[in-house]
Amino acid sequence: MDIDSTAQDKARFFAGAWGRVKALPGKLKAKVTSTAKSIKRLGQDDPRRLTHSLKVGLALTLVSLLYYARPIYDGFGVSGMWAVLTVVVVFEFTVGGTLSKSLNRGFATFLAGALGLGADYFASLFGKNGEPIVLGILVFLLAAAATFSRFFPRIKARYDYGVLIFILTFSLVAVSGYRVNELVVLAHQRLSTIIMGGATCMLISIFVCPVWAGEDLHKAIASNLEKLATYLEGFGGVYFQSSESDGMGTGKSFPQGYKSILNSKSSEESLANFARWEPGHGRFRLRHPWKHYLKIGALARQCAYQIEAINGCIGSDHIQGSEEFKGKIEGSCTRMSAECGKTLKALARSMKTMTDPYSSANTHVENSKAAMKDLKFALKAASLENADLAAILPAATVGSILVEIVKCVEKISEAVHELSQLAHFKKETVEPTVSPEKPPQLLHRGIIQPVLDGDSTANDNVVITIHEIISTDSPENEKACDQHQVPKPGKKIEAL
Amino acid sequence: MDIDSTAQDKARFFAGAWGRVKALPGKLKAKVTSTAKSIKRLGQDDPRRLTHSLKVGLALTLVSLLYYARPIYDGFGVSGMWAVLTVVVVFEFTVGGTLSKSLNRGFATFLAGALGLGADYFASLFGKNGEPIVLGILVFLLAAAATFSRFFPRIKARYDYGVLIFILTFSLVAVSGYRVNELVVLAHQRLSTIIMGGATCMLISIFVCPVWAGEDLHKAIASNLEKLATYLEGFGGVYFQSSESDGMGTGKSFPQGYKSILNSKSSEESLANFARWEPGHGRFRLRHPWKHYLKIGALARQCAYQIEAINGCIGSDHIQGSEEFKGKIEGSCTRMSAECGKTLKALARSMKTMTDPYSSANTHVENSKAAMKDLKFALKAASLENADLAAILPAATVGSILVEIVKCVEKISEAVHELSQLAHFKKETVEPTVSPEKPPQLLHRGIIQPVLDGDSTANDNVVITIHEIISTDSPENEKACDQHQVPKPGKKIEAL
Repeated sequence: MDIDSTAQDKARFFAGAWGRVKALPGKLKAKVTSTAKSIKRLGQDDPRRLTHSLKVGLALTLVSLLYYARPIYDGFGVSGMWAVLTVVVVFEFTVGGTLSKSLNRGFATFLAGALGLGADYFASLFGKNGEPIVLGILVFLLAAAATFSRFFPRIKARYDYGVLIFILTFSLVAVSGYRVNELVVLAHQRLSTIIMGGATCMLISIFVCPVWAGEDLHKAIASNLEKLATYLEGFGGVYFQSSESDGMGTGKSFPQGYKSILNSKSSEESLANFARWEPGHGRFRLRHPWKHYLKIGALARQCAYQIEAINGCIGSDHIQGSEEFKGKIEGSCTRMSAECGKTLKALARSMKTMTDPYSSANTHVENSKAAMKDLKFALKAASLENADLAAILPAATVGSILVEIVKCVEKISEAVHELSQLAHFKKETVEPTVSPEKPPQLLHRGIIQPVLDGDSTANDNVVITIHEIISTDSPENEKACDQHQVPKPGKKIEAL
Repeated sequence: MDIDSTAQDKARFFAGAWGRVKALPGKLKAKVTSTAKSIKRLGQDDPRRLTHSLKVGLALTLVSLLYYARPIYDGFGVSGMWAVLTVVVVFEFTVGGTLSKSLNRGFATFLAGALGLGADYFASLFGKNGEPIVLGILVFLLAAAATFSRFFPRIKARYDYGVLIFILTFSLVAVSGYRVNELVVLAHQRLSTIIMGGATCMLISIFVCPVWAGEDLHKAIASNLEKLATYLEGFGGVYFQSSESDGMGTGKSFPQGYKSILNSKSSEESLANFARWEPGHGRFRLRHPWKHYLKIGALARQCAYQIEAINGCIGSDHIQGSEEFKGKIEGSCTRMSAECGKTLKALARSMKTMTDPYSSANTHVENSKAAMKDLKFALKAASLENADLAAILPAATVGSILVEIVKCVEKISEAVHELSQLAHFKKETVEPTVSPEKPPQLLHRGIIQPVLDGDSTANDNVVITIHEIISTDSPENEKACDQHQVPKPGKKIEAL
């Protein structure tokens, strides 16, 4: 019985193994196909990745010439290997990264080489027996001190690689000095090959399809504002309408693009760090206010946190909301989020075109503030005799967080204004069209904002359309806002 | 006139320069003092930084022996320099980081060295003139392909350094093969010195005051839960009481420790990556479920986002809140946040002691859910005839977000339970005390939670104390919860 079962086990094992072997080509094929697909997707997501890979290959092949070409080889000898090493280690995706590493490496090698020679000379004063001991102590002290300095946040951010290379070169020079006699020649060769490798990297990264960290940061911040805008523009339509038709948000869903903003801090900071090393390029001057982008990024994250909180409240079905109350605040809430979205779109557009966002964004900020006041009045006027608070809570919370978002968007608008002044954005050229002779507002909007996409349901709602016509960015704008601020009670409730 | 002003300018310039020179020693002194202070602070914040620096110094000095000691030098020659290079580049703050880099470097060097030799042999088939061309093409292709592979998120996370070293070694071996004849000897020397350097780093980082990435991750997650707990335990007291005395939260302030959680993702991920390279140590086995920590971390961040939203609502003074309404929900809200805080404290403690958190945390989760239901009833019962909604909104929003936090904390509790099962936490030894003979609940609590600090104002509030006594973790617990679910209307309003 026992032997039988063992035999059966064996047979089963071999059958299984054979099955696996037979399935191998199929599995392998599937694996290869999926890998090929993910390679293709990786390249399509950002074609600059492919360019970057080719650039690294080019730089390495160029530097290898140092070895291949006899006249150059005779000049540099084995030190040519340092050029290869430098290219591999120093070539980064962005120009700023490459420059930062190359310059760090160059200066650190020079400084540490000089110090190493000094240490060597100093140690030689102690005679044949004392020399290794003194050198050992010096290497220990310097390595420990330099390693500790890497914990300083400021040094870590800008000079981490330089300090690493400093330790490396110092110990190499100090230690090898004990053996190699022609140390100065060696140090000179090494430094010049490193400069050659670094220069190759810098030139290729700047002149062959450059990837500027600064431009990436600029685009990333603008696209973050756009992601927030997409959510907010669509919000009113999805939240208020889906609940009318089919319970809680099962119909249309909210765009989830904003989620990537929540964890954007570290990548923004490293881009800003690299951007500071870059020379002026395109529309960016040398001392572009890169730090200011981090401020806008932090505010955008703040806004994303609020959206995340709204999302949490909407997603939970703990209390069945009151449709009546929801209807009462629908108008002002939809307008608040839509105007916030439009503000952010205008700011993103002004960043992309590098024009001063003053007139276009400010109108929407004022509109959203007016809608905020409308909400206040709607809340004051709402009769609550036969409604219970628990049913009102979900929608009320959404309204309350939207108020926070309006404030946050206002701050973002101020920060972008500040940036436009610091970075000397050009004045808006569309300003002259804000004149009495301009075409009807609705048409004008259609021209400025061709990106208004399908899921912005603002047009489905008569009430909102009316408000959009009222709040133009014409000279009568301020008056219109005043009307919003002190609405006649009867008219307001009718509008909502 | 013009000359005069120039002379004045000059005089002013020199006076200013002289002033700056005179002030130099003072400034220098101030600078030195401030630097010394920040060094001291850096060391005190985490004394392991100092130890790490000394460890790097030690490893470098040890490896330098390869150069100093003549018998070793004769064996390895200039290749000894690779040992120095390896130590500088490979030694990281955590054991996991050092192991990951050492192993990556070792395997990549071996693989790339073998491939390089193969490429060399292949190229030599094409004759003296064809060889450099073929080698150049091979280097170009391999460097480009390997660089591209670094964009894969999975390779980036675990093998980034290995791929870098692979490119480096392959190009060095392939390129230098054209000149150096004794390539195999050289490759062997280089590999053995790299192994020597890597082994020195690994041994020192494991056996001299090790800093385990896994332990750091474990502690970081537990401390994040504690930060959330500190905020939530104090929340009710600060929010409801400060507004009674002096407007909006100007008296006591909320602890801001939770803010560091918002951006904790990248550091947690890198720690988890390093932790996977570490051998079993202390209370952690080899295959400890490190990935699961990331799940708990993500939930903690979710909770921090909600707290950030609450903070935003509290900080803004857009609508003067109604004190009457605030008083009505004070009891249940304070209890909800306090019980959430206690749950998180219990979970953090159970993580720290690596005991199963079942009985202690679950009681608090149940209590917080009961408080959530109380809030619902309080909202239903609250009379709103003479209150306007705008005044109710701030407090109602806080209540609504607290409900979300309760849900989030429940999820965290589940995730920690799951972790305790995956990681085989030991069973709680206090469980036997959960028996009919146990001392009164309040006393028991006092024993389990000695960390209950001053700013938890639960004891100032009679209502809450009563509820704590009702909802014990005795067998009657479920009944008590049922009582919460269907309270008599009269009694409920009295309790709130």
